[in-house]
Amino acid sequence: MKNDLYKILVELSPNYKKNYLPSISIDCVVFGFHDASLKVLLLQLKNTTKWGLPGGYLKRDEDLNAGANRILKERTGAENIFLNQFKTFGKKNRSEEFFSDFPDDLWHKQRYISIAHYALINFEIVNPVIDQFSEACEWKEISELPELMMDHEDIFNEALLQLRRDLNYKPVGLNLLPEKFTMPELQKLYEIILDKKLNRGNFYRKMTRYEILEKLNETRKGGAHKAPDLYKFDEKKYKAALKTGLQESW
Amino acid sequence: MKNDLYKILVELSPNYKKNYLPSISIDCVVFGFHDASLKVLLLQLKNTTKWGLPGGYLKRDEDLNAGANRILKERTGAENIFLNQFKTFGKKNRSEEFFSDFPDDLWHKQRYISIAHYALINFEIVNPVIDQFSEACEWKEISELPELMMDHEDIFNEALLQLRRDLNYKPVGLNLLPEKFTMPELQKLYEIILDKKLNRGNFYRKMTRYEILEKLNETRKGGAHKAPDLYKFDEKKYKAALKTGLQESW
Repeated sequence: MKNDLYKILVELSPNYKKNYLPSISIDCVVFGFHDASLKVLLLQLKNTTKWGLPGGYLKRDEDLNAGANRILKERTGAENIFLNQFKTFGKKNRSEEFFSDFPDDLWHKQRYISIAHYALINFEIVNPVIDQFSEACEWKEISELPELMMDHEDIFNEALLQLRRDLNYKPVGLNLLPEKFTMPELQKLYEIILDKKLNRGNFYRKMTRYEILEKLNETRKGGAHKAPDLYKFDEKKYKAALKTGLQESW
Repeated sequence: MKNDLYKILVELSPNYKKNYLPSISIDCVVFGFHDASLKVLLLQLKNTTKWGLPGGYLKRDEDLNAGANRILKERTGAENIFLNQFKTFGKKNRSEEFFSDFPDDLWHKQRYISIAHYALINFEIVNPVIDQFSEACEWKEISELPELMMDHEDIFNEALLQLRRDLNYKPVGLNLLPEKFTMPELQKLYEIILDKKLNRGNFYRKMTRYEILEKLNETRKGGAHKAPDLYKFDEKKYKAALKTGLQESW
């Protein structure tokens, strides 16, 4: 099986051995929100049918946090992204089997633990980058994921659970929505992340009570219905409120 | 500086290189509750004045979770411990400087990321074990910590923040308190973890409303005051309630 991916990896292997830390990889679950649906950025390696999370390795002279940001930038072109490390995955044989047909001394074939991060990205500013290992790099709707390689489905599921919990503690809405949004759009985002329908009146009351939204003198035009009001987050109040947590149950 | 620690590490280095994964260490913040105070298990390496968190390395053929449990067992003699991975620490030079006087090819001197866990332990069943690297292994009260080595103070502080947040999501009380306890003892535990005084009546009402406690037909005898009632957790209800979270603010 000496296909393109094989040739590329064998050629790059010595450079990786020299410049990167062994045993450690970084994987990123990149969330974006668009057209009332939550999406995740996936790539398809050359010569494979499965999809995977964008990831990479940590340089020997690089802080972990800097490495995760670098990898994200390489994949999306985006900088200053909201990035949250949430769990490290370290089962035996979580990645080696994927490279079973490759030479044993290949860099990519060693045992790795994966330090998983999730990223929240404004969908509109991202340019998915197809790198040299990949055939495709695309946004996929989270309810229609393709088959994922290695343990990437576990990593994705844990990221979504963490995102759900972090609704009360991290500026999730601020990072996923465009600057101006309507209350139904915000509610839809919460419903997808929480995986349940919310009562419209209750949602409105809670959001108002938190005092983290600023109502603008603008409406969203163009729909068939009465034009809904536009809001934006009061970033200072939002972040202050998150420090103690928006600790109400939904 | 060829002291005891130096000799031991140089001798063990080849074995570590053979059997353990490079670049990865595991550190554990072990919490115990006793005499109305929250304590953490620390050890003091031979020939050093600073203290550190118990930790170790991951074997090449060992799941990450199994490695963390093994390390805890080696240090405390305890099994089936509540263990929660909470963050991976990966700053450059977080550990190498500590070994600056040691040979460059020493196993311990390489760059490590540390996969940090916190553990909750019933104080009464633990036998702190002084291993071959250590001079002492002791419980220290969290408000009176000695100076810690490397970035272990950061790791401890993050563990405490995580524990605070996890009060609503993990069986913290169940794992830190003895089987039977009084309401003032439970309140004291919450006050220490949250680092604030709580109103006695409110605390009692909230705890009762969660329906996670079972009141026993026993009282704590021996005090100068009226003997307080003893409670235990209804483990099934407690764990069911934590699934959605005890999402009220304190």
